Amino acid sequence: MTKSLTGNNQYLKELNQAAVMELIRQKGRLSRKELSDLTGLSPTACGSITRQLIQDGFLYETGQGESTGGRKPVMLEIRPNSYYAAGFDIGMEELQMVVADITGKILYHRNLEYTSGISVEKAMDLVYDELLVISEELGLSRERFLGCGLSIPGLVDRGTNQVIMAPNLSWNHVDLKAKASDILKMPVYIENEAMCSAICENWIGKCRNVDNFVCINVESGIGAGIFIGGTIYRGFSGSAGEIGHLIVQENGRLCGCGNHGCLETYASTRYMLLEVNNRLNNGYSPKSIPKGTMRWDKIVEAAGKGDALCAEVLHQGAKFLGYAVAFLINTLNPEAIVLGKCFTQYAPMVMDTLTKTVKEKALHYPAARARIMTSEFGMSSSALGAAMIPIRKIFGK
Amino acid sequence: MTKSLTGNNQYLKELNQAAVMELIRQKGRLSRKELSDLTGLSPTACGSITRQLIQDGFLYETGQGESTGGRKPVMLEIRPNSYYAAGFDIGMEELQMVVADITGKILYHRNLEYTSGISVEKAMDLVYDELLVISEELGLSRERFLGCGLSIPGLVDRGTNQVIMAPNLSWNHVDLKAKASDILKMPVYIENEAMCSAICENWIGKCRNVDNFVCINVESGIGAGIFIGGTIYRGFSGSAGEIGHLIVQENGRLCGCGNHGCLETYASTRYMLLEVNNRLNNGYSPKSIPKGTMRWDKIVEAAGKGDALCAEVLHQGAKFLGYAVAFLINTLNPEAIVLGKCFTQYAPMVMDTLTKTVKEKALHYPAARARIMTSEFGMSSSALGAAMIPIRKIFGK
Repeated sequence: MTKSLTGNNQYLKELNQAAVMELIRQKGRLSRKELSDLTGLSPTACGSITRQLIQDGFLYETGQGESTGGRKPVMLEIRPNSYYAAGFDIGMEELQMVVADITGKILYHRNLEYTSGISVEKAMDLVYDELLVISEELGLSRERFLGCGLSIPGLVDRGTNQVIMAPNLSWNHVDLKAKASDILKMPVYIENEAMCSAICENWIGKCRNVDNFVCINVESGIGAGIFIGGTIYRGFSGSAGEIGHLIVQENGRLCGCGNHGCLETYASTRYMLLEVNNRLNNGYSPKSIPKGTMRWDKIVEAAGKGDALCAEVLHQGAKFLGYAVAFLINTLNPEAIVLGKCFTQYAPMVMDTLTKTVKEKALHYPAARARIMTSEFGMSSSALGAAMIPIRKIFGK
Repeated sequence: MTKSLTGNNQYLKELNQAAVMELIRQKGRLSRKELSDLTGLSPTACGSITRQLIQDGFLYETGQGESTGGRKPVMLEIRPNSYYAAGFDIGMEELQMVVADITGKILYHRNLEYTSGISVEKAMDLVYDELLVISEELGLSRERFLGCGLSIPGLVDRGTNQVIMAPNLSWNHVDLKAKASDILKMPVYIENEAMCSAICENWIGKCRNVDNFVCINVESGIGAGIFIGGTIYRGFSGSAGEIGHLIVQENGRLCGCGNHGCLETYASTRYMLLEVNNRLNNGYSPKSIPKGTMRWDKIVEAAGKGDALCAEVLHQGAKFLGYAVAFLINTLNPEAIVLGKCFTQYAPMVMDTLTKTVKEKALHYPAARARIMTSEFGMSSSALGAAMIPIRKIFGK
């Protein structure tokens, strides 16, 4: 079908602009001649497209490349500090915010803590205030923002741009895009938090050239963001990646979903915390920490110092997480699995347990071909990924 | 990028031919004017492409359509009985073979039984002999065959066209395409059997306009064929869909893979048969069947007649299959799940058990949006799907 390419000049122009930007992003720098060769566009068309992109501030001319006979060609690169995007990760206990430029460089990163949950209105107020503060601090004008991504711990409908449900925040059927666009006066994109992490890994992280991979985030719940064929996979109605309720123990622990033995009841921070505290209150005395109710970060710390109970709970979580990873490897045969968020805090302690479980429970053929990694972004992958959403649009993604 | 569309005329021609064929397949019949409008190709280009396709026998002119003012346009349809493809499903106990024409009509269907396994050489001999017999019986010349699809119960590398492993047949690293092409003198396509079933459902079955779905085949093993975004999903190294080793019972039955509690040990025909026979030999006496060793078909028959043991084993299998379906629904959020092969033999008895389990174990949101169906093709879906592979090529798939 060639209609869309000949019938609509504006569409074609944007397509070609995005293609030029993406090629330069992939290669780092290119001459106009190289762009023409790689795109199949005429030198005239290439000249016109790059002229516009330079004028608009997306590209700039930078030094000279290698000569292939004649005079040395002028090289084009993506212009840093030209356009920006903001990303907000709205979590149970904190709002994370990030500003990045179109090269993916992080210019600003801040966390705001609150206690157990936040209302939609309060969250939007915070986002608005933060954007004002940052714009001032960094001296950025609002027109230089390509948009804002909001990472939500819940189910998002990208068609209607609604938050269908975010159980941990008690948000249900919120038209967040409309609310946020009204306040922020820039394009707003809503995305599931595990998917934001997957976008982050694909754009600036460990899965930059990986087409098929799964990002698994361990937090108070467990969710996955899936990339298939180089693009985001959302499923039929946008809820793909809900791996937290895999039954790992027939007749096991009661889960919030009403079932018994879900993965989350063994491997999420909420339930691991619950187990430690339950066992502490029933008389267990850890050697390295005071008695009483523990917070999540103390569990990781205690396990690191050799506390047997805390270590046992983390290892058990990693074992059952390994069951889910094994099944994902068998079913999806991904090139990579990236474990993120809270898992990165205790990964060095339990990674052996997880990979050993995967080796035992997955088929050898796909398991031998899947790299299992931890995210390098710690708790920030979703905020970073959210900021990458408006930036990716410039590159046709 | 427009290079591929302007730089290579043969490629463009084939692309346009396939696009025209696919549009006519989707709509049933179209005039040249409608084709031109839908493709964006000029009337001249459309005329030239359809002339060639008529001349080659893929299309024919059929009566007159509705007039939109001027004289009634001539309509074009796909020509039945013009080109054919053969599909072979090489199973543990039988070879199924199918011949279909490019409209998807089944012209021939035959099963050849053998006992427990077949060698590569014997299988190729059978395929060769069968093709000769059929060609004669149907009076089809070899030139009219677009090719032959081979459905294999194992792992297939579509890149190198090797059978990596088919454990039930004891085939390992077989360059089956080379062997088969040598003998059959036509294009040969090798594909995993569950994927063949998925192709069948997508081309002529219940998932014709479904982009994201999973076909699950219950046989002596359990495997899945996955479609994502309207196309076959194979994963990073071609082994996606191996769902049979999901752990459904921690410390459960020993599986051939070395683990305990795999789905296959409860829900595959091999293990369900084993369980019935084990329990029969330990003193259980079914009321409707003779004592001793039972065959698989007798188990289905006995369960149908009310035998408690056989029914219990089938229901248990369906329950654990429901666990896998629930996880697939949560993870992939598919539009449909199609259960096929042996499952279709006892589906009416156990479907309630399976759907009840899915309702309990899957999240409500994706479960309410996934249709769970049984295949209408019984044991034939893989042979049919294999035959569709060469046919799909004509339509650019």
